[in-house]
Amino acid sequence: MNKDIIIIGCGASGGTAAQFARKTDRKSSITIFEKGKYPQYSKCGLPYAISGIITSFENLIEFSAEWFKNAKIDLLLDTTVEKIDKDNQIVIAKKSNEIIEKTYGSLILATGAMPLVPEIKNLKKNNVLNSGVFTLRTIDDARKISSSIIKGKNATIVGAGLIGLEIAESLFKKGMNVTIIEALPYILPNTLNKDMADIVFKELLKNIEIFTNHIATKIKTENEKISEVSIKNNENGNEKNIVTDILVIATGSKPEVSLAKNIGCKIGNTGYISVNNKCETSVKNIYAIGDCTEFYDFVTKKSVCIGLGSIAVRQGITAGINAAGGNYILPDGVLQTCTSEFFGIEIASVGPSVKDLPVVSGRFNGLSLPNYFPGGKPISIKVFVDEKTGKIISAQAVGDRAAKRIDTFACAILSGMNVETFKKLETAYAPPIAPTLDAEILACDVVSMKLNRLR
Amino acid sequence: MNKDIIIIGCGASGGTAAQFARKTDRKSSITIFEKGKYPQYSKCGLPYAISGIITSFENLIEFSAEWFKNAKIDLLLDTTVEKIDKDNQIVIAKKSNEIIEKTYGSLILATGAMPLVPEIKNLKKNNVLNSGVFTLRTIDDARKISSSIIKGKNATIVGAGLIGLEIAESLFKKGMNVTIIEALPYILPNTLNKDMADIVFKELLKNIEIFTNHIATKIKTENEKISEVSIKNNENGNEKNIVTDILVIATGSKPEVSLAKNIGCKIGNTGYISVNNKCETSVKNIYAIGDCTEFYDFVTKKSVCIGLGSIAVRQGITAGINAAGGNYILPDGVLQTCTSEFFGIEIASVGPSVKDLPVVSGRFNGLSLPNYFPGGKPISIKVFVDEKTGKIISAQAVGDRAAKRIDTFACAILSGMNVETFKKLETAYAPPIAPTLDAEILACDVVSMKLNRLR
Repeated sequence: MNKDIIIIGCGASGGTAAQFARKTDRKSSITIFEKGKYPQYSKCGLPYAISGIITSFENLIEFSAEWFKNAKIDLLLDTTVEKIDKDNQIVIAKKSNEIIEKTYGSLILATGAMPLVPEIKNLKKNNVLNSGVFTLRTIDDARKISSSIIKGKNATIVGAGLIGLEIAESLFKKGMNVTIIEALPYILPNTLNKDMADIVFKELLKNIEIFTNHIATKIKTENEKISEVSIKNNENGNEKNIVTDILVIATGSKPEVSLAKNIGCKIGNTGYISVNNKCETSVKNIYAIGDCTEFYDFVTKKSVCIGLGSIAVRQGITAGINAAGGNYILPDGVLQTCTSEFFGIEIASVGPSVKDLPVVSGRFNGLSLPNYFPGGKPISIKVFVDEKTGKIISAQAVGDRAAKRIDTFACAILSGMNVETFKKLETAYAPPIAPTLDAEILACDVVSMKLNRLR
Repeated sequence: MNKDIIIIGCGASGGTAAQFARKTDRKSSITIFEKGKYPQYSKCGLPYAISGIITSFENLIEFSAEWFKNAKIDLLLDTTVEKIDKDNQIVIAKKSNEIIEKTYGSLILATGAMPLVPEIKNLKKNNVLNSGVFTLRTIDDARKISSSIIKGKNATIVGAGLIGLEIAESLFKKGMNVTIIEALPYILPNTLNKDMADIVFKELLKNIEIFTNHIATKIKTENEKISEVSIKNNENGNEKNIVTDILVIATGSKPEVSLAKNIGCKIGNTGYISVNNKCETSVKNIYAIGDCTEFYDFVTKKSVCIGLGSIAVRQGITAGINAAGGNYILPDGVLQTCTSEFFGIEIASVGPSVKDLPVVSGRFNGLSLPNYFPGGKPISIKVFVDEKTGKIISAQAVGDRAAKRIDTFACAILSGMNVETFKKLETAYAPPIAPTLDAEILACDVVSMKLNRLR
């Protein structure tokens, strides 16, 4: 039986899969075909390499070509997979002009995603983004943005999601005047509710300009370079022109699924490759992981696309072990724990969108330290609980040490914990660390009181 | 029926009980008899008021006399309870020379604890600590220590537990040369295992001197003031004299249980008042909370004494609500989540002592941020798992943001989570926040591998 493993894509999920496959099976061949020119690097780190916090783009490489070589993993860079012959379990790839044919026992698709570019008039010329217009997905994208930064000039970003705001901070740190355009009525719409996002919004306005409820409609060029972007208010239709030197599109991504589609892997409703909690696709011996996949949410069991590095890595572990003959099973759905930090504010969330769910929510605004201890900073926590069962299903946090507070809620959701239990949790207390009753607990207490009033 | 509530003691547990009793019952009288002269203040904050981080001792007061008055809670300071007549439900107290008799429907004992002073020759004169010798339990104790600090002079602390180390840092910050004496072979013996404590030990040695495996045997005075402390090596019996200007005893505490004993409240094996998860004692209508009580550990169901502010407050909530006619039930045992910070190092732990338990442990030493992101600091996590069931029962953390990482383990223990589930938890990831696979996860992975090898 052929035990050889082929992985397509050397991002966080693909690289991790190779590692864990090698840990599980010390002998079989493991081959990665990567179309780009870099071995596994942190895409999430790109904004920080632009800002200069990470001092070189090379520093983003987490595992070098040499590392893969030492682990006896064949990493082929600049190599594009042209075809998968699933009946004979052969992958046909091309590196320069050489055609490579390789058979597999297990194949892992880690083909990732590419930027989703909205319809903006004049954005492209001959199907290529105009000069000064960028997306951010790869090191090469980041290098291009980096070399276009001019201190004191204007940058405009379309999209106020996590990545949009991370880029905004990077360009601001480089001395640019930054404006953000967001189509929805508030920032971070996929991560926070409006009331929580508004805390961040107010802080951001100290440094940058933000137009929510606006879409970019067209750009104007001058000397073959962007000079202006026109935006339109979604509510009243008012238009406005913004003089800008660079424009970064950060409006999400779409999956790379053409290879998967060609061989009949089931594509889910979201347009991503459908996988189970072993990361298997619908095609025998073929796994899929990372940004090209969808899986279901732990609470709602509804499909969600995987766009988070933390999940990509966990899927990589899973597929790597399983492709090598092990048996590794992920929890029954993803928690979607997610965090970032911009302009000194930590934000974090966990759980599904609660928009159409029967929930009771509670919010607490407090300080990260006891009132009597100097240096405490604001922290706001919002918790969402199933109206019927009282189980915690989602939580959001903005402020000091928000992320690790959300981890505790992630654990509660994974265990199916009731808010009545969570509110009695002994959280760590010491004056320089946290209050006796942490904001986590007090937010749950608010929910608990609301629930009791309903009963 | 008499619904009036009397609380003896206005520490964190007693004050909290009064608050929650008042929230539950807006009408009945609530009276607190407090033998000291201050309303509810933070005992845990005392070391930081000595160091000057908290700029005045008054700042430690969390709820003022006026606050209690506004909440219609009768707080009587400088008032000592002389007797409880449990048959007639009357408390007899004394304020100055006035005798106060008051009936109760519910009585809450929050009598706290007092410092445990070991046998050290010549420590006391006429049963009073010699000049320059201190314990730390009250604001008055802290004021005395504060006024004895002289920059450049020597301070010796007996006991390298949490409070001993907190005092050590305070005195160091005030410019004293600090020495710590610890009878056991390593510091923080009630909080960490030796390997974890040694990380802290090495850091402390940069600033202070520590003699582990040593006991203080006698002191010498000069002009009615301490001048020297003699210490003895537990292993080889070698003796040594340390010149010191002040000596602080931080070797634990013993409970104030005389009132409880007199009325026949069950005293547990530990010598503390035995309570259940409603904070009821063995005597009808009498509750006990805080540092004078024992309750059982969540995992082992063995009695442990409550010496933590976080538990005191949770017991206060419970007794307050129940004494006022509500029904509030704590989890089936305490988790003993605990944290502190000294010399910039956060430490935290949760769960029972694992000394006599059949556990498998795993430790991971890593960085708090991804390797490629600047500013990551060391973090070590050790996890203890039941050998048979795989359930997480205890965890320890030392390093960057240790405390909130331990909260996640507290939640896992409370939910009875298996290490195989926890190691798949989606922890919050972003380059400036935490790695994709946090030290929490990787420590669990180490345990998981060990467990699998055993099977």
